[in-house]
Amino acid sequence: MAAEDFIKSIQPKLTEWRRHFHKNPELGFMEYRTTCTIGKELEQLGFKVYAGKDALDSKSRYGVPSLSDLENQEQQAKDSGIDTEWAEKMHGGHTGLVAVWDTQKPGTHAAFRFDIDALPIEEAEDEHHFPFQHNFTSNEKGVMHACGHDGHTTIGLGLAHYIASHHNELNGKFTLLFQPAEEGGRGAKAMTDKGWLDGVDTFYSGHIGIHSLPVGTVAASTKGFLASSKLNVQFKGQSSHAGMKPEDGRNALLAAATAAVQLYTIPRHSDGVSRINVGKLIAGNGRNIISDRGYLELETRGETQAINRFMQKEAKRMIEAAASMHDTKAEIEFVGETEEMVCDEDLVPFITEVVQPSSFIKEVQPVAFVSGSEDASFMMNAVQTQGGQATYMLFGTQLPDNHHSPAFDFEEDVLTVAVDTYIHIVKGGNSIA
Amino acid sequence: MAAEDFIKSIQPKLTEWRRHFHKNPELGFMEYRTTCTIGKELEQLGFKVYAGKDALDSKSRYGVPSLSDLENQEQQAKDSGIDTEWAEKMHGGHTGLVAVWDTQKPGTHAAFRFDIDALPIEEAEDEHHFPFQHNFTSNEKGVMHACGHDGHTTIGLGLAHYIASHHNELNGKFTLLFQPAEEGGRGAKAMTDKGWLDGVDTFYSGHIGIHSLPVGTVAASTKGFLASSKLNVQFKGQSSHAGMKPEDGRNALLAAATAAVQLYTIPRHSDGVSRINVGKLIAGNGRNIISDRGYLELETRGETQAINRFMQKEAKRMIEAAASMHDTKAEIEFVGETEEMVCDEDLVPFITEVVQPSSFIKEVQPVAFVSGSEDASFMMNAVQTQGGQATYMLFGTQLPDNHHSPAFDFEEDVLTVAVDTYIHIVKGGNSIA
Amino acid sequence: MAAEDFIKSIQPKLTEWRRHFHKNPELGFMEYRTTCTIGKELEQLGFKVYAGKDALDSKSRYGVPSLSDLENQEQQAKDSGIDTEWAEKMHGGHTGLVAVWDTQKPGTHAAFRFDIDALPIEEAEDEHHFPFQHNFTSNEKGVMHACGHDGHTTIGLGLAHYIASHHNELNGKFTLLFQPAEEGGRGAKAMTDKGWLDGVDTFYSGHIGIHSLPVGTVAASTKGFLASSKLNVQFKGQSSHAGMKPEDGRNALLAAATAAVQLYTIPRHSDGVSRINVGKLIAGNGRNIISDRGYLELETRGETQAINRFMQKEAKRMIEAAASMHDTKAEIEFVGETEEMVCDEDLVPFITEVVQPSSFIKEVQPVAFVSGSEDASFMMNAVQTQGGQATYMLFGTQLPDNHHSPAFDFEEDVLTVAVDTYIHIVKGGNSIA
Amino acid sequence: MAAEDFIKSIQPKLTEWRRHFHKNPELGFMEYRTTCTIGKELEQLGFKVYAGKDALDSKSRYGVPSLSDLENQEQQAKDSGIDTEWAEKMHGGHTGLVAVWDTQKPGTHAAFRFDIDALPIEEAEDEHHFPFQHNFTSNEKGVMHACGHDGHTTIGLGLAHYIASHHNELNGKFTLLFQPAEEGGRGAKAMTDKGWLDGVDTFYSGHIGIHSLPVGTVAASTKGFLASSKLNVQFKGQSSHAGMKPEDGRNALLAAATAAVQLYTIPRHSDGVSRINVGKLIAGNGRNIISDRGYLELETRGETQAINRFMQKEAKRMIEAAASMHDTKAEIEFVGETEEMVCDEDLVPFITEVVQPSSFIKEVQPVAFVSGSEDASFMMNAVQTQGGQATYMLFGTQLPDNHHSPAFDFEEDVLTVAVDTYIHIVKGGNSIA
Repeated sequence: MAAEDFIKSIQPKLTEWRRHFHKNPELGFMEYRTTCTIGKELEQLGFKVYAGKDALDSKSRYGVPSLSDLENQEQQAKDSGIDTEWAEKMHGGHTGLVAVWDTQKPGTHAAFRFDIDALPIEEAEDEHHFPFQHNFTSNEKGVMHACGHDGHTTIGLGLAHYIASHHNELNGKFTLLFQPAEEGGRGAKAMTDKGWLDGVDTFYSGHIGIHSLPVGTVAASTKGFLASSKLNVQFKGQSSHAGMKPEDGRNALLAAATAAVQLYTIPRHSDGVSRINVGKLIAGNGRNIISDRGYLELETRGETQAINRFMQKEAKRMIEAAASMHDTKAEIEFVGETEEMVCDEDLVPFITEVVQPSSFIKEVQPVAFVSGSEDASFMMNAVQTQGGQATYMLFGTQLPDNHHSPAFDFEEDVLTVAVDTYIHIVKGGNSIA
Repeated sequence: MAAEDFIKSIQPKLTEWRRHFHKNPELGFMEYRTTCTIGKELEQLGFKVYAGKDALDSKSRYGVPSLSDLENQEQQAKDSGIDTEWAEKMHGGHTGLVAVWDTQKPGTHAAFRFDIDALPIEEAEDEHHFPFQHNFTSNEKGVMHACGHDGHTTIGLGLAHYIASHHNELNGKFTLLFQPAEEGGRGAKAMTDKGWLDGVDTFYSGHIGIHSLPVGTVAASTKGFLASSKLNVQFKGQSSHAGMKPEDGRNALLAAATAAVQLYTIPRHSDGVSRINVGKLIAGNGRNIISDRGYLELETRGETQAINRFMQKEAKRMIEAAASMHDTKAEIEFVGETEEMVCDEDLVPFITEVVQPSSFIKEVQPVAFVSGSEDASFMMNAVQTQGGQATYMLFGTQLPDNHHSPAFDFEEDVLTVAVDTYIHIVKGGNSIA
Repeated sequence: MAAEDFIKSIQPKLTEWRRHFHKNPELGFMEYRTTCTIGKELEQLGFKVYAGKDALDSKSRYGVPSLSDLENQEQQAKDSGIDTEWAEKMHGGHTGLVAVWDTQKPGTHAAFRFDIDALPIEEAEDEHHFPFQHNFTSNEKGVMHACGHDGHTTIGLGLAHYIASHHNELNGKFTLLFQPAEEGGRGAKAMTDKGWLDGVDTFYSGHIGIHSLPVGTVAASTKGFLASSKLNVQFKGQSSHAGMKPEDGRNALLAAATAAVQLYTIPRHSDGVSRINVGKLIAGNGRNIISDRGYLELETRGETQAINRFMQKEAKRMIEAAASMHDTKAEIEFVGETEEMVCDEDLVPFITEVVQPSSFIKEVQPVAFVSGSEDASFMMNAVQTQGGQATYMLFGTQLPDNHHSPAFDFEEDVLTVAVDTYIHIVKGGNSIA
Repeated sequence: MAAEDFIKSIQPKLTEWRRHFHKNPELGFMEYRTTCTIGKELEQLGFKVYAGKDALDSKSRYGVPSLSDLENQEQQAKDSGIDTEWAEKMHGGHTGLVAVWDTQKPGTHAAFRFDIDALPIEEAEDEHHFPFQHNFTSNEKGVMHACGHDGHTTIGLGLAHYIASHHNELNGKFTLLFQPAEEGGRGAKAMTDKGWLDGVDTFYSGHIGIHSLPVGTVAASTKGFLASSKLNVQFKGQSSHAGMKPEDGRNALLAAATAAVQLYTIPRHSDGVSRINVGKLIAGNGRNIISDRGYLELETRGETQAINRFMQKEAKRMIEAAASMHDTKAEIEFVGETEEMVCDEDLVPFITEVVQPSSFIKEVQPVAFVSGSEDASFMMNAVQTQGGQATYMLFGTQLPDNHHSPAFDFEEDVLTVAVDTYIHIVKGGNSIA
């Protein structure tokens, strides 16, 4: 069966999967039901599936939810009927999975990465919102697939079906990484540190959307993702009655506010783009109390690891100085990280050659300029360090609203475009000639 | 019946009332059940009772809760069985009441003020906590009488019983003010502006506790309460993706943090004590978003109205400058106020003369030094402006924990001391000689 | 000769001295010519005079000028013709002197302190300015007696003349302290630490002016002087080209500015008056250079030593935190200090009794309320610690302009009032009855 | 005479000129003697010379020195013997000149720009310093050619000699711009606004040094200069005694420090490089005085005019907000500006073709990467706007110390390299073929 026919045959399934995942979104490291759904599908297809601590290095996970959040979510997953065996394997936030298909024939080892987590956003209930029109908005109040990872997961399943059904025509080895907790840069390092990128020759990942582009547009590579670090900070001081004993307070609100202002004064870096943002500040007990507690959420970014490390080092020293300024203590927790990301320019001509316009694909550009951060960077850097090649692609779709907004959506036709693209890559790189 | 016997007779009732109010705490301007309980008791005794908009000037209330909070609480009060008539009268946060007994005989017009509201604090469930031991901790999760106003309300009822049962021996006129929303300085101005202090010759209010003192200690006056203002501030900016378009943001978190830091730089005042505190700062949307919203709760204080006005003026200008600094807008809301408070020194010798040690009272001091702020100041200043005299007293009790803390409590014997004190004052000032 | 006649006889001399000192002002620890003039006069009168390191504990001096400033001023003093012997004795900023007259008869040991230094202010050349009208403005450009210490020195000489010419009528012992470097609180500790207050029974000092009062008004004591500390801070960072390598700078300007803002956020103290001021900030190399150097001059004050120590401790920690915030180092130098100052209430009735209205004195008040700081406090506290009594008085004069301003001046008649007051005190406390 | 021979013949003259200008440095808009020296030389050669208000648009000058500085310098120039006529023409800071040679033959109109001003830096007196070894260090204490403009001026004179002596072989028109006040971006706009770039077809300027490169290296274009703005700010408040009346002060030191800190929080710009620096902060009267005066020197930069305008707009609003924060007023003065600068890529191949290695030139690179800002940008943008072409070149030399440092120097052989380069450009573009 030609690729085009295969895709047409699987298109209804793609739609069904996408809507299922969209309706059942789960936050990072709590994708219990999602992982189970993917895992069962892939096992059925004949993939060797690795989950739980086999998929992730437990200690390399960033920003793992609290025990009580994990337990609530695990209970809910069990209540919804997932297998006890799967539940046990994933216990404690070990979600996501790795699926391997080894043709046993000599050839390239290609890895494909799909991120599966949702966001803490309350989905729009609006008649202009496509998922609302078609009745598949989120079942979980306050959780939403608002960045298209429901689509990414679906594309991964589509590609898996192709590999399983065409394995006779293929050579080499395929590793599909269904990664948890991409949001906040929390999950990729744990898969990478587990060794899943060892020996990989070519690595592919990508994103749908980012910019509004016509469906059918594909970019073979991207430029502009930044290395980044995510930090949470707790300031601990001493409360006191602000009228009676102001001198007895150690003002954690003032420490947090001082840190917030000062962090933006970190110098610009002459080697390239840098960023700093304090995105949340919560402090204080009551109007007439000198605050004993302040909390910050911040991120640094840099065009290179070196720039981001500079930002991080400055941020850390400044936070501690702000704490000391008001005689408080700061506890800094690193809760996420992404690395700089450079797509291999040698991989681009390969892609533009093998991925030709089709019923689904309209145009293949060599590169798209983006911004933001991506923890696929850990995987890419691991592959590149060993001499492999890696790229991060873009799959065009019109966007009715921004990523991470309550009315985010994408055109479902992009799913076929992406599956078609990956199939051409697989055929181009792993065909029995 | 002598005062001492009267008090002994009413003591069980005092304990019962206190525990009832403690168990059923209500926040400021939502004391629906409390007001109804007081009102029915006083009507039964023969007082003329004024409630709702008859007791308060509606527009002079500060920091009225949101409509939805009021409605929830009103519904709850109705569900608990309060009269429809009372409910209607108090609708929209018009709680508290004024009770008048006019002997129709020439004599002094004496006013007594009792505050009735509770605090948004979750009460300790601890075996060392007296209300827990005796099974009268708060029924309302997150609401607690943690400042002794349950005691104040009880003392008011005790005094009312005395007046009603001894009115033949008394002359002049008595006004009892059961004031809502003392916390935050929100309710007194509304009773004052309604005119209830017009024509009052002598005004008495007081507090149990403040410092830990032996039960039986009474101070005829206090020094040290500060004029104060309470402000809430909303900063409104423009959110933007902190990685992609930092220059498009108008950073409300940064505006709020800047304001917080800068407010503490208001100069000290050479005319006397001043205070500033930002007690709450909440800002931000998410780590990677430049924040479009910041919120502050703050207070200023001054030994005199002039000093507090200076603090307020500086604060206002600085908040607006901080908003402008980061191209945001600030909305400032005044949500509470107290005035400076000077007890009449002429009233002190009268009190120390008429209030003599008894079975309940051990020692009467002329003055106690305190700090904090009290909106009884509005009433006192109104009385003094017309040529009347006013004082604010202290009734000693050991305190196991600070006011406004989850384990706050007082010794119930202080109730009899306070009732005894007021009875002596009434007898001393309004007896038919 | 009666006191009144004595004063009349010496009045022309008082005027002459005052104008001489006014014309020849010298800054703290550089009063070479002034000290020499005083010393020779007192030696001639028969006082035992102690100067140089006999008068001061060298190490206890605060804020000693730089070696080159001292040497310039010493050379200038030599050029103006002061004795080599005196010059040697005072070498290195050991100015001021102590003069002792011991009657050898049993009696009180009374000490009187006069400060002798001028200020770095350029005197007004204005036809309304009395010293300009009478041709005795400062000969030293940029140096001026703008706080009346020329008058204080004169009063000391007047009192010395009285003691010398009336010693037969007196008993006990007299110590006259001509103190250098009062401005900035730099000289009193050095005299105190040298032991000159040991064994003193009664201590007197005072100020002319402060408030504008009629000449003839005398206050037996003052209230309101604050303990204080003076600090200079150097921030040292790393310069870098702001366009080319902003990340290589360690911004000392930013550290200094951060410190300046944050220092004003030190909390108010509930035990009494506190103050903080950064009075000078100089930082930066050039517009396009990240600054490697920043400099602050600041002071803290407190109603009590404890409050001032609190302010000092907070200031020190904050300065170091500001330095660390921008990866710089701070060097903090303490350059002056005054203590809290409480006049003995027992001394007041003595003074009001012995100092009666005269041709010169019109009215003696028990106390005057002032503000500011005075390092006579070190001397007073030393006396009081040993059981002696001390006071700091005020001598009224109209003031055409504020202290420390270019047009500051006082009415010369206040000199006779002060001398008369001290004579009455001497006669009252040290007469052979 | 071939170019090479011409250069050899003029080389002693180049050295002499360079050392003369180095020895007699003058600050921007006060290059009276320098301008006069250049002008007389060029007039002698037969150039038409335009000086004073004929060369500059008076109002378009930025950061003109104070009247008294101008007058002092003019007097000094007169005392050194410059013509009265020239002195009158340049009166009030109208220095620099434009020299035109029109061959009257059809051809290209080429403009060359040379900047002539020195810096407020005290030159090193150090045996390793070449000008010290050869006895031509600055005669003006505190003024130094520390950026190589003495060399630029010399190169201009060398080129002028070539044009004058070879005009028969040339066609078209030559405009030589000897620009004052390049430092701080103050002079170029005034020449541009006077219209001197109107009708220019090709524009050339350049710099010696910047990076340490071997003598003989030439770059045909540069990339990396940023648009920039220079601002001075005066904050005006109200002084008050910090101990007695802190509340009466309006603290200009605090306003300036607040502005300094906050300015660094201007967001990074996603369209490209931005910079902000506060390079000087001077505030305060004395330790115990609340400061009534604060002063800032700052600069903004941007990769594009739009980015720099964004920085400027933010800076302006923030400075005003900081002033308002502490109830002071800010006066902002724009004292310099440069524009973004894009060398024409079409001009590069022309240069690399006509400028071939010679006895002097070793290597011609197409582009050198630099940073900093250049007001030649005004001239380049004016030329490009009309359809002309412009470039800014680099002439390599080893640098013993950085630009703008007291020991800055360059290798004098670079002078012949630059003259040779410009001669080849002239021959290539304006030869009678």
